[in-house]
Amino acid sequence: MDRDERYMQMAIEMAKETVGQTSPNPAVAAIVVNRNQVVGVGVHVKAGEPHAEIHALRMAGDKAIGAEIYVTLEPCSHYGQTPPCAEAVIKAGIHRAVIASEDPNPKVSGRGIRMMKENGLEVKTQVLKEEADQLNRSFFHYIQTKQPYVRLKTAMSLDGKIATSTGESQWITGEEARKDGHLYRHQSDAILVGINTVLMDNPKLTTRIDGNGRHPIRIILDTHLKTPPSSQLIQDDQAPTWIFVGAKVGKEREELYEKYEHVRIISLENDQVSIDEVLQYLGEHKVTSLLVEGGATIADAFVRAGKVDETITYMAPKLIGGKEALTPVGGEGIQQLKNARAFVIVSTEKMGDDIKIVSVRKGES
Amino acid sequence: MDRDERYMQMAIEMAKETVGQTSPNPAVAAIVVNRNQVVGVGVHVKAGEPHAEIHALRMAGDKAIGAEIYVTLEPCSHYGQTPPCAEAVIKAGIHRAVIASEDPNPKVSGRGIRMMKENGLEVKTQVLKEEADQLNRSFFHYIQTKQPYVRLKTAMSLDGKIATSTGESQWITGEEARKDGHLYRHQSDAILVGINTVLMDNPKLTTRIDGNGRHPIRIILDTHLKTPPSSQLIQDDQAPTWIFVGAKVGKEREELYEKYEHVRIISLENDQVSIDEVLQYLGEHKVTSLLVEGGATIADAFVRAGKVDETITYMAPKLIGGKEALTPVGGEGIQQLKNARAFVIVSTEKMGDDIKIVSVRKGES
Repeated sequence: MDRDERYMQMAIEMAKETVGQTSPNPAVAAIVVNRNQVVGVGVHVKAGEPHAEIHALRMAGDKAIGAEIYVTLEPCSHYGQTPPCAEAVIKAGIHRAVIASEDPNPKVSGRGIRMMKENGLEVKTQVLKEEADQLNRSFFHYIQTKQPYVRLKTAMSLDGKIATSTGESQWITGEEARKDGHLYRHQSDAILVGINTVLMDNPKLTTRIDGNGRHPIRIILDTHLKTPPSSQLIQDDQAPTWIFVGAKVGKEREELYEKYEHVRIISLENDQVSIDEVLQYLGEHKVTSLLVEGGATIADAFVRAGKVDETITYMAPKLIGGKEALTPVGGEGIQQLKNARAFVIVSTEKMGDDIKIVSVRKGES
Repeated sequence: MDRDERYMQMAIEMAKETVGQTSPNPAVAAIVVNRNQVVGVGVHVKAGEPHAEIHALRMAGDKAIGAEIYVTLEPCSHYGQTPPCAEAVIKAGIHRAVIASEDPNPKVSGRGIRMMKENGLEVKTQVLKEEADQLNRSFFHYIQTKQPYVRLKTAMSLDGKIATSTGESQWITGEEARKDGHLYRHQSDAILVGINTVLMDNPKLTTRIDGNGRHPIRIILDTHLKTPPSSQLIQDDQAPTWIFVGAKVGKEREELYEKYEHVRIISLENDQVSIDEVLQYLGEHKVTSLLVEGGATIADAFVRAGKVDETITYMAPKLIGGKEALTPVGGEGIQQLKNARAFVIVSTEKMGDDIKIVSVRKGES
C-alpha cells in the first residue's frame, strides 16, 4: 500500500461510518494533506449540509495552499444545494487532488476532474476505486437506474431452511447475525415485507442498534389492504409506513387508515402489485435503497422480476432437513437455470457461530 | 510462528499430501533436524509400509544422533505390523521430540511420549495440534467410535436449492467446485448414494482427478434391491460395489448379482435399512471415512440419525426460488430446532464463482 493508498484508505474508513445517514446523497470523506501532515478532514454528514471537501478545506484554512486533497468521490461540478466542490478545491489553493471513484452520473462524470485539471491541479484518479465504489453501490445504482438498490436479506440453515417442517423458525441464526441485520435497516432508506409477514409476525421493522439507529420507511405489499389497523406498523409511528395496494381496493377501506399521519396508502395501476411499479414509485420519492426482509413469496417476486441487486445471507451451521420445510425464496421460482441471474460473492464473514455471505449482481460489483 | 512451529508446519504440509492414501492408518509426516539442518524427512505412504518416523530416521542415519525429530502424530508405542516408532526414535539417538497430536486411542495415548521421556528425551507436545488434528479428523473419529467419519457433500444455490421447481439441476455449481468434490472421493474409503440416485442418474461414482485418483468403495442403500444389473455401478468394476438391502429381499434376487466379483450384497437385520447398522458394518470392514453424495432423502436419514460428522457445501451465487424446488436435505427432517445438531464452520473458501463451506460437528473441531 503506497502513500496515496494509505491516505485514501483512511478517507474510506471515515466515509464508511456515515453510510446510511447521507441519503439521498452518497457517503463521502476528504482529507487535506500538507507536506505529509494531515491538516484537514471532513465527511458529508447529511443531505443539505456541506460536502466532505468543504469541511476538510475549512479545517485546513491557509494550510490548504499548496496541499493535496484526498476524496473518496469526484468533487461535484454543478450548483446544487451547495456550490460546486471542484471550484472550492481550486480556490483553496490545493495543488494535487487524489480521487477514488468518479461521479456515477454519466452526464457529469469527469467534469469535476476536468475543471481541476484545467486550473492547473495535478489529478490522480481510481485510487482504491473498488473499495470506494462498494461504499456507495446503492447510491450509484440509484443514480443510474432511478430505482432503489434492492438488498435481499435471509437467514437459513446449512441446508437452506428457514424453518423446520413443523414451522418452527425462531432463532435459526444467533445474536450477532441478528444484530448485524439491524445495521442494514439503519443503512437502508426503506424496508419491505409482504402482508403475510405482517399478519403472522406483526413486526415493528424499526432499527434496534446501540446508540440511535435510523428507522427506514416501512413498506408493505398488500394487494387487498388487509393490514390490521391494530398492527404495530400502524400503531407505532416511529417511522413512515407505506402500503402498496392493488387498483381494486375501495376508498372506504383506505379511509380506515387516514387518521394515522405516518401511514400512506399507494394505489397501483393494476389489481396485482407489480414489483417494477413499486420500485418506480420509490425511486421517484428518493428511496435510494430498499431492504427486502420477508417472506419467501415476496423474495420470489423480486427474484423473478430480476430486481435483487444484492443478497445478504446469514447461514447457521445446523442441518434441519425436511422436504416440506420452508426455504428463503419460495413462490413459483425460476423454471430454467439459464434464467437465474448470476451474482458475484463479494464477502464471506464469520458472525458468531454463523457466517454471512454477501453477493452482488454480476456487473454491479 | 516460532522455529518449532515452522518445522511442524512443514511436516503438516507433507502429511497433507498423503491424506486418503494411508487408510486405515492416519496421514503422518516426520522431519529430523540436526543443528538447524533438515537431515531426514519421511511420510507414511501406505498401510503395511514403514511409518513416517522410520523413513525420516533412515534418511538421517548417523545425523539423527543428538538431533530433534518433528512428528505430526505421537510415535506409536506398540508392536503392530511394524515395531514401535517411539523405540526407533530412542535407539536412533534423538535428543528432542516435538509432537503435534497425541495418539487418538485413549488406551495408548501418551504412552509413546512417556516411553521417550523415560529414556531421557526432551518432549514438547501440542505444537500446531489443531492443524494436525484436522488432517486426521476422520481417522481419530474412526478410532474412537469404530464407525466411519461421515461427510455430507451438497451443492446448492444461494437460496438453498439443488434444482429448479421443474427439476432442472445440472451444473448449479461450476467446474472448480465439481473438481474439488472429486478430491473428497479420492480421500474417502467409501462413497454412498441411495437407490433413487442410481435409478435416476446411473452414476459411476469413481474419482476423476488429474493423475490417478483412488476410487472409493461404492455403497448403495437399496432396501428392496432394485439396482439394475445393467447399471454402471454393476457393469463397471473399477471399484467394489456394496449394496445394503433389507431382510426381506429373497436369495434368488441376490443371485442375479453373483457373477460380478466386485459386487457384494449385504442383508441387514431389519426390513428397513438402518443408518447405524450400515455404519457399524462399514466400521467393522475398515471403512474409516464415508462420503454421502445423494440424494436428499438419504441425506435426511443421516441427519436424523445424528450421523453427519462434517458438511461440505458448495454454494453457487444464484437465486432460484420456488416453494417446490428441491433442497439438499429432504425427507421428514428434524421437527424441533433444539434437536438440530450444532456444527462449527471451519472454513469458507472461494472456488471459482462459487464458495465452499466446511463445517464439522461441534466437539469434533
